Amino acid sequence: MQGAILVLSGPSGAGKSTIINHASSQIGEYYFSISTTTREPREGEKDGVDYYFVTREAFEEGIKAGDFLEYATVHGNYYGTSLKPVKQALFEGKLVIFDIDVQGHRLVRAKMGDYVTSVFITPPTLKELEKRLYARSTDDDSIIKRRVENAKEEINAIGEFDFVIINDSVEVASAQFATIANAARLKQNREELEKIVLHWKN
Amino acid sequence: MQGAILVLSGPSGAGKSTIINHASSQIGEYYFSISTTTREPREGEKDGVDYYFVTREAFEEGIKAGDFLEYATVHGNYYGTSLKPVKQALFEGKLVIFDIDVQGHRLVRAKMGDYVTSVFITPPTLKELEKRLYARSTDDDSIIKRRVENAKEEINAIGEFDFVIINDSVEVASAQFATIANAARLKQNREELEKIVLHWKN
Repeated sequence: MQGAILVLSGPSGAGKSTIINHASSQIGEYYFSISTTTREPREGEKDGVDYYFVTREAFEEGIKAGDFLEYATVHGNYYGTSLKPVKQALFEGKLVIFDIDVQGHRLVRAKMGDYVTSVFITPPTLKELEKRLYARSTDDDSIIKRRVENAKEEINAIGEFDFVIINDSVEVASAQFATIANAARLKQNREELEKIVLHWKN
Repeated sequence: MQGAILVLSGPSGAGKSTIINHASSQIGEYYFSISTTTREPREGEKDGVDYYFVTREAFEEGIKAGDFLEYATVHGNYYGTSLKPVKQALFEGKLVIFDIDVQGHRLVRAKMGDYVTSVFITPPTLKELEKRLYARSTDDDSIIKRRVENAKEEINAIGEFDFVIINDSVEVASAQFATIANAARLKQNREELEKIVLHWKN
Protein backbone atom coordinates (compact mmCIF):
# COMPACT_ATOMS: atom_id res chain seq x y z
CA MET A 1 0.00 0.00 0.00
CA GLN A 2 1.37 3.42 -0.97
CA GLY A 3 -1.14 5.74 0.67
CA ALA A 4 -1.04 7.54 3.98
CA ILE A 5 -3.46 8.34 6.76
CA LEU A 6 -4.00 11.75 8.32
CA VAL A 7 -6.05 11.73 11.52
CA LEU A 8 -7.68 14.97 12.56
CA SER A 9 -9.04 15.27 16.08
CA GLY A 10 -10.12 18.09 18.34
CA PRO A 11 -13.22 19.43 20.02
CA SER A 12 -16.38 20.02 18.08
CA GLY A 13 -16.18 23.76 17.31
CA ALA A 14 -12.42 23.71 16.70
CA GLY A 15 -13.02 24.41 13.01
CA LYS A 16 -11.86 21.11 11.53
CA SER A 17 -14.21 21.09 8.51
CA THR A 18 -13.49 24.75 7.73
CA ILE A 19 -9.76 24.06 7.77
CA ILE A 20 -10.04 21.01 5.49
CA ASN A 21 -12.21 22.93 3.01
CA HIS A 22 -9.88 25.90 3.08
CA ALA A 23 -6.77 23.76 2.56
CA SER A 24 -8.24 21.28 0.07
CA SER A 25 -6.85 22.99 -3.04
CA GLN A 26 -3.30 22.80 -1.62
CA ILE A 27 -3.16 19.17 -0.56
CA GLY A 28 -3.59 17.15 -3.75
CA GLU A 29 -5.87 14.16 -4.09
CA TYR A 30 -7.31 12.80 -0.87
CA TYR A 31 -10.13 10.60 0.35
CA PHE A 32 -12.15 11.97 3.26
CA SER A 33 -13.29 9.04 5.36
CA ILE A 34 -17.03 9.11 6.03
CA SER A 35 -18.12 7.61 9.34
CA THR A 36 -20.97 5.17 9.75
CA THR A 37 -23.49 5.83 12.53
CA THR A 38 -26.72 4.52 14.00
CA ARG A 39 -27.90 7.94 15.14
CA GLU A 40 -30.76 9.71 13.37
CA PRO A 41 -29.79 12.16 10.60
CA ARG A 42 -30.13 15.80 11.68
CA GLU A 43 -31.88 18.29 9.45
CA GLY A 44 -29.89 18.80 6.25
CA GLU A 45 -27.58 15.81 6.78
CA LYS A 46 -27.25 13.47 3.81
CA ASP A 47 -26.54 9.74 3.76
CA GLY A 48 -23.17 9.06 2.14
CA VAL A 49 -22.08 12.69 2.55
CA ASP A 50 -22.18 13.53 6.25
CA TYR A 51 -22.40 9.94 7.47
CA TYR A 52 -23.48 6.53 6.34
CA PHE A 53 -26.69 6.13 8.33
CA VAL A 54 -27.38 2.49 9.19
CA THR A 55 -29.53 0.50 11.61
CA ARG A 56 -28.23 -0.83 14.87
CA GLU A 57 -28.58 -4.40 13.53
CA ALA A 58 -26.51 -3.64 10.44
CA PHE A 59 -23.83 -1.96 12.54
CA GLU A 60 -23.59 -4.88 14.95
CA GLU A 61 -23.30 -7.34 12.07
CA GLY A 62 -20.47 -5.21 10.70
CA ILE A 63 -18.71 -5.39 14.06
CA LYS A 64 -18.98 -9.18 14.12
CA ALA A 65 -17.71 -9.41 10.53
CA GLY A 66 -14.65 -7.25 11.40
CA ASP A 67 -15.73 -4.53 8.99
CA PHE A 68 -14.72 -1.62 11.24
CA LEU A 69 -11.30 -0.07 11.57
CA GLU A 70 -12.55 1.62 14.75
CA TYR A 71 -15.88 2.17 16.43
CA ALA A 72 -17.32 3.50 19.67
CA THR A 73 -20.62 4.27 21.31
CA VAL A 74 -21.33 7.91 22.13
CA HIS A 75 -24.51 8.73 24.05
CA GLY A 76 -26.03 5.39 23.10
CA ASN A 77 -25.28 5.56 19.37
CA TYR A 78 -22.64 3.69 17.41
CA TYR A 79 -20.06 5.58 15.35
CA GLY A 80 -17.41 3.79 13.31
CA THR A 81 -15.12 3.73 10.29
CA SER A 82 -15.52 1.02 7.66
CA LEU A 83 -12.23 -0.59 6.76
CA LYS A 84 -13.01 -1.36 3.12
CA PRO A 85 -13.07 2.14 1.53
CA VAL A 86 -9.99 3.11 3.58
CA LYS A 87 -8.01 0.11 2.30
CA GLN A 88 -9.16 0.81 -1.24
CA ALA A 89 -8.02 4.44 -1.04
CA LEU A 90 -4.66 3.42 0.44
CA PHE A 91 -4.13 0.92 -2.37
CA GLU A 92 -4.82 3.73 -4.83
CA GLY A 93 -2.04 5.72 -3.11
CA LYS A 94 -4.39 8.37 -1.75
CA LEU A 95 -4.09 10.36 1.42
CA VAL A 96 -6.97 9.26 3.65
CA ILE A 97 -8.21 11.95 6.05
CA PHE A 98 -10.13 10.97 9.20
CA ASP A 99 -12.09 13.34 11.38
CA ILE A 100 -12.38 11.21 14.52
CA ASP A 101 -12.12 11.66 18.29
CA VAL A 102 -9.11 10.92 20.50
CA GLN A 103 -10.36 7.36 21.17
CA GLY A 104 -10.65 6.73 17.44
CA HIS A 105 -7.13 8.10 16.97
CA ARG A 106 -5.79 5.55 19.48
CA LEU A 107 -7.46 2.67 17.66
CA VAL A 108 -6.38 3.77 14.18
CA ARG A 109 -2.81 4.27 15.38
CA ALA A 110 -2.80 0.86 17.06
CA LYS A 111 -4.02 -0.86 13.89
CA MET A 112 -2.33 1.16 11.15
CA GLY A 113 0.36 3.16 12.93
CA ASP A 114 2.78 2.72 10.03
CA TYR A 115 0.58 4.89 7.87
CA VAL A 116 -0.60 7.47 10.41
CA THR A 117 0.21 11.13 10.92
CA SER A 118 -2.08 12.88 13.40
CA VAL A 119 -3.10 16.45 14.16
CA PHE A 120 -5.02 17.83 17.08
CA ILE A 121 -6.87 21.05 16.24
CA THR A 122 -7.95 23.31 19.06
CA PRO A 123 -9.46 26.76 19.46
CA PRO A 124 -7.06 29.09 21.34
CA THR A 125 -9.04 29.00 24.60
CA LEU A 126 -11.97 27.27 26.26
CA LYS A 127 -13.86 30.61 26.26
CA GLU A 128 -13.41 30.89 22.51
CA LEU A 129 -14.75 27.35 22.05
CA GLU A 130 -17.90 28.19 24.04
CA LYS A 131 -18.35 31.36 22.02
CA ARG A 132 -18.11 29.43 18.73
CA LEU A 133 -20.50 26.72 19.85
CA TYR A 134 -23.13 29.29 20.92
CA ALA A 135 -22.62 31.30 17.72
CA ARG A 136 -23.21 28.18 15.63
CA SER A 137 -26.43 27.68 17.61
CA THR A 138 -27.37 24.40 15.96
CA ASP A 139 -27.44 22.72 19.36
CA ASP A 140 -29.34 23.47 22.53
CA ASP A 141 -27.60 24.50 25.78
CA SER A 142 -27.36 21.05 27.33
CA ILE A 143 -25.62 19.68 24.22
CA ILE A 144 -23.21 22.62 24.16
CA LYS A 145 -22.37 22.03 27.83
CA ARG A 146 -21.72 18.37 27.07
CA ARG A 147 -19.48 19.32 24.16
CA VAL A 148 -17.49 21.67 26.38
CA GLU A 149 -17.03 18.92 28.98
CA ASN A 150 -15.93 16.49 26.25
CA ALA A 151 -13.49 19.10 24.98
CA LYS A 152 -11.94 19.47 28.44
CA GLU A 153 -11.39 15.71 28.45
CA GLU A 154 -10.00 15.55 24.92
CA ILE A 155 -7.39 18.27 25.47
CA ASN A 156 -5.65 15.88 27.89
CA ALA A 157 -4.80 13.58 24.96
CA ILE A 158 -2.98 16.35 23.07
CA GLY A 159 0.44 14.79 23.74
CA GLU A 160 -0.49 11.66 21.75
CA PHE A 161 -0.63 13.61 18.49
CA ASP A 162 2.18 14.32 16.04
CA PHE A 163 1.09 17.92 15.52
CA VAL A 164 -1.09 20.52 17.20
CA ILE A 165 -2.76 23.38 15.36
CA ILE A 166 -4.18 26.27 17.34
CA ASN A 167 -6.97 27.61 15.20
CA ASP A 168 -6.77 31.31 15.90
CA SER A 169 -6.74 32.41 12.26
CA VAL A 170 -8.31 30.16 9.59
CA GLU A 171 -5.69 31.27 7.04
CA VAL A 172 -2.72 30.38 9.24
CA ALA A 173 -4.31 27.15 10.52
CA SER A 174 -5.19 26.02 6.97
CA ALA A 175 -1.67 26.70 5.69
CA GLN A 176 -0.25 24.69 8.61
CA PHE A 177 -2.70 21.90 7.90
CA ALA A 178 -1.68 21.80 4.22
CA THR A 179 2.01 21.59 5.17
CA ILE A 180 1.32 18.71 7.54
CA ALA A 181 -0.91 16.90 5.01
CA ASN A 182 1.78 17.12 2.33
CA ALA A 183 4.42 15.79 4.73
CA ALA A 184 2.03 12.98 5.78
CA ARG A 185 2.14 11.68 2.20
CA LEU A 186 5.91 11.31 2.46
CA LYS A 187 5.79 9.12 5.54
CA GLN A 188 7.33 5.77 4.75
CA ASN A 189 5.74 2.69 6.21
CA ARG A 190 7.54 -0.44 7.32
CA GLU A 191 6.64 -2.36 4.14
CA GLU A 192 8.09 0.34 1.90
CA LEU A 193 11.21 0.70 4.04
CA GLU A 194 11.96 -2.99 3.63
CA LYS A 195 11.61 -2.64 -0.11
CA ILE A 196 13.99 0.34 -0.11
CA VAL A 197 16.64 -1.54 1.89
CA LEU A 198 16.42 -4.59 -0.36
CA HIS A 199 16.54 -2.51 -3.50
CA TRP A 200 19.40 -0.50 -2.13
CA LYS A 201 21.61 -3.41 -1.15
CA ASN A 202 21.33 -5.12 -4.55
CA MET B 1 12.35 27.34 23.16
CA GLN B 2 10.34 27.76 19.97
CA GLY B 3 12.67 26.33 17.35
CA ALA B 4 12.83 22.89 15.83
CA ILE B 5 15.55 20.46 14.81
CA LEU B 6 15.79 18.69 11.47
CA VAL B 7 18.33 15.88 11.35
CA LEU B 8 19.60 14.82 7.94
CA SER B 9 21.50 11.55 7.66
CA GLY B 10 22.48 9.24 4.86
CA PRO B 11 25.58 7.96 3.12
CA SER B 12 28.22 10.33 1.87
CA GLY B 13 27.30 10.70 -1.83
CA ALA B 14 23.55 10.69 -1.19
CA GLY B 15 23.37 14.34 -2.21
CA LYS B 16 22.51 15.92 1.14
CA SER B 17 24.26 19.27 0.55
CA THR B 18 22.85 19.56 -2.97
CA ILE B 19 19.33 18.99 -1.64
CA ILE B 20 19.69 21.57 1.14
CA ASN B 21 21.04 24.16 -1.28
CA HIS B 22 18.33 23.44 -3.80
CA ALA B 23 15.55 23.65 -1.19
CA SER B 24 16.94 26.57 0.82
CA SER B 25 14.77 29.23 -0.82
CA GLN B 26 11.60 27.29 0.07
CA ILE B 27 12.22 26.59 3.73
CA GLY B 28 12.42 29.97 5.43
CA GLU B 29 15.06 30.96 7.93
CA TYR B 30 17.24 28.15 9.24
CA TYR B 31 20.54 27.61 11.00
CA PHE B 32 22.79 24.95 9.50
CA SER B 33 24.74 23.35 12.32
CA ILE B 34 28.48 23.28 11.65
CA SER B 35 30.36 20.35 13.16
CA THR B 36 33.60 20.63 15.09
CA THR B 37 36.43 18.26 14.20
CA THR B 38 40.03 17.45 15.03
CA ARG B 39 40.84 16.19 11.53
CA GLU B 40 43.01 18.22 9.18
CA PRO B 41 41.19 20.55 6.77
CA ARG B 42 41.13 19.19 3.20
CA GLU B 43 42.05 21.43 0.30
CA GLY B 44 39.48 24.20 -0.07
CA GLU B 45 37.80 23.59 3.31
CA LYS B 46 37.33 26.68 5.46
CA ASP B 47 37.23 26.98 9.23
CA GLY B 48 33.77 28.12 10.36
CA VAL B 49 32.21 27.17 7.02
CA ASP B 50 32.83 23.45 6.44
CA TYR B 51 33.83 22.66 10.00
CA TYR B 52 35.22 24.27 13.09
CA PHE B 53 38.74 22.85 13.06
CA VAL B 54 40.16 22.48 16.58
CA THR B 55 43.00 20.64 18.32
CA ARG B 56 42.51 17.33 20.07
CA GLU B 57 43.19 19.07 23.41
CA ALA B 58 40.50 21.70 22.82
CA PHE B 59 38.00 19.03 21.78
CA GLU B 60 38.65 16.91 24.86
CA GLU B 61 38.27 19.94 27.12
CA GLY B 62 34.93 20.62 25.44
CA ILE B 63 33.82 17.04 26.15
CA LYS B 64 34.72 17.40 29.82
CA ALA B 65 32.88 20.73 30.04
CA GLY B 66 29.72 19.20 28.49
CA ASP B 67 29.92 21.48 25.47
CA PHE B 68 28.87 18.83 22.94
CA LEU B 69 25.35 17.80 22.02
CA GLU B 70 26.85 14.71 20.36
CA TYR B 71 30.30 13.55 19.38
CA ALA B 72 32.05 10.48 18.05
CA THR B 73 35.42 9.30 16.83
CA VAL B 74 35.69 8.28 13.19
CA HIS B 75 38.98 6.81 11.96
CA GLY B 76 40.83 8.32 14.88
CA ASN B 77 39.41 11.84 14.61
CA TYR B 78 36.80 13.54 16.78
CA TYR B 79 33.63 14.94 15.22
CA GLY B 80 30.97 16.70 17.31
CA THR B 81 28.23 19.31 17.57
CA SER B 82 28.59 22.22 19.98
CA LEU B 83 25.50 22.74 22.07
CA LYS B 84 25.74 26.52 22.44
CA PRO B 85 24.96 27.75 18.88
CA VAL B 86 22.18 25.15 18.61
CA LYS B 87 20.50 26.37 21.80
CA GLN B 88 20.89 29.97 20.68
CA ALA B 89 19.23 29.24 17.32
CA LEU B 90 16.38 27.33 19.01
CA PHE B 91 15.78 30.25 21.37
CA GLU B 92 15.57 32.51 18.32
CA GLY B 93 12.87 30.19 16.96
CA LYS B 94 14.96 28.97 14.04
CA LEU B 95 14.91 25.60 12.35
CA VAL B 96 18.26 23.99 13.08
CA ILE B 97 19.46 21.58 10.38
CA PHE B 98 22.03 18.89 11.23
CA ASP B 99 23.95 16.83 8.70
CA ILE B 100 25.13 13.99 10.95
CA ASP B 101 25.45 10.21 10.82
CA VAL B 102 23.05 7.63 12.21
CA GLN B 103 24.94 7.51 15.53
CA GLY B 104 24.66 11.28 15.85
CA HIS B 105 20.95 11.04 15.09
CA ARG B 106 20.49 8.60 17.99
CA LEU B 107 22.25 10.93 20.42
CA VAL B 108 20.43 14.09 19.29
CA ARG B 109 17.10 12.27 19.49
CA ALA B 110 17.91 10.95 22.95
CA LYS B 111 18.82 14.43 24.23
CA MET B 112 16.37 16.66 22.35
CA GLY B 113 13.75 14.27 20.95
CA ASP B 114 10.97 16.78 21.64
CA TYR B 115 12.37 19.05 18.96
CA VAL B 116 13.55 16.50 16.40
CA THR B 117 12.26 15.51 12.98
CA SER B 118 14.63 13.28 11.04
CA VAL B 119 15.20 12.36 7.40
CA PHE B 120 17.36 9.66 5.90
CA ILE B 121 18.50 10.48 2.37
CA THR B 122 19.68 7.67 0.15
CA PRO B 123 20.68 7.19 -3.48
CA PRO B 124 18.31 4.75 -5.23
CA THR B 125 20.84 1.88 -5.27
CA LEU B 126 24.24 0.89 -3.98
CA LYS B 127 25.54 0.89 -7.57
CA GLU B 128 24.39 4.48 -8.01
CA LEU B 129 26.18 5.47 -4.80
CA GLU B 130 29.47 3.95 -6.03
CA LYS B 131 29.05 5.72 -9.37
CA ARG B 132 28.54 9.09 -7.64
CA LEU B 133 31.49 8.64 -5.31
CA TYR B 134 33.81 7.79 -8.21
CA ALA B 135 32.45 10.66 -10.31
CA ARG B 136 33.17 13.09 -7.47
CA SER B 137 36.75 11.74 -7.43
CA THR B 138 37.87 13.82 -4.46
CA ASP B 139 38.80 10.65 -2.58
CA ASP B 140 41.08 7.75 -3.44
CA ASP B 141 39.82 4.20 -3.95
CA SER B 142 40.39 2.95 -0.42
CA ILE B 143 38.34 5.85 1.04
CA ILE B 144 35.54 5.24 -1.46
CA LYS B 145 35.47 1.55 -0.50
CA ARG B 146 35.27 2.51 3.17
CA ARG B 147 32.42 4.93 2.41
CA VAL B 148 30.52 2.19 0.60
CA GLU B 149 30.98 -0.18 3.55
CA ASN B 150 29.79 2.55 5.96
CA ALA B 151 26.79 3.16 3.73
CA LYS B 152 25.82 -0.54 3.85
CA GLU B 153 25.90 -0.27 7.63
CA GLU B 154 23.95 2.99 7.79
CA ILE B 155 21.08 1.76 5.62
CA ASN B 156 20.18 -0.67 8.43
CA ALA B 157 19.20 2.28 10.63
CA ILE B 158 16.67 3.59 8.10
CA GLY B 159 13.71 2.53 10.28
CA GLU B 160 14.76 4.93 13.06
CA PHE B 161 14.02 7.97 10.89
CA ASP B 162 10.74 9.86 10.53
CA PHE B 163 11.13 10.20 6.77
CA VAL B 164 13.12 8.65 3.95
CA ILE B 165 13.98 10.46 0.73
CA ILE B 166 15.24 8.45 -2.24
CA ASN B 167 17.38 10.89 -4.17
CA ASP B 168 16.71 9.81 -7.73
CA SER B 169 15.87 13.28 -9.05
CA VAL B 170 17.28 16.37 -7.28
CA GLU B 171 14.11 18.35 -8.09
CA VAL B 172 11.75 15.78 -6.54
CA ALA B 173 14.03 15.10 -3.57
CA SER B 174 14.45 18.83 -2.85
CA ALA B 175 10.69 19.45 -2.99
CA GLN B 176 10.14 16.56 -0.58
CA PHE B 177 12.84 17.91 1.70
CA ALA B 178 11.23 21.38 1.71
CA THR B 179 7.84 19.89 2.63
CA ILE B 180 9.38 17.93 5.51
CA ALA B 181 11.40 20.95 6.72
CA ASN B 182 8.29 23.12 6.80
CA ALA B 183 6.35 20.48 8.72
CA ALA B 184 9.29 20.08 11.13
CA ARG B 185 8.79 23.71 12.19
CA LEU B 186 5.23 22.88 13.22
CA LYS B 187 6.23 20.08 15.56
CA GLN B 188 5.15 20.93 19.07
CA ASN B 189 7.47 20.04 21.91
CA ARG B 190 6.41 18.96 25.38
CA GLU B 191 7.03 22.39 26.91
CA GLU B 192 4.80 24.11 24.37
CA LEU B 193 2.08 21.47 24.69
CA GLU B 194 1.87 22.09 28.42
CA LYS B 195 1.51 25.81 27.78
CA ILE B 196 -1.28 25.15 25.27
CA VAL B 197 -3.21 22.94 27.68
CA LEU B 198 -2.89 25.46 30.50
CA HIS B 199 -3.87 28.36 28.28
CA TRP B 200 -6.75 26.36 26.89
CA LYS B 201 -8.25 25.34 30.19
CA ASN B 202 -8.29 28.89 31.57
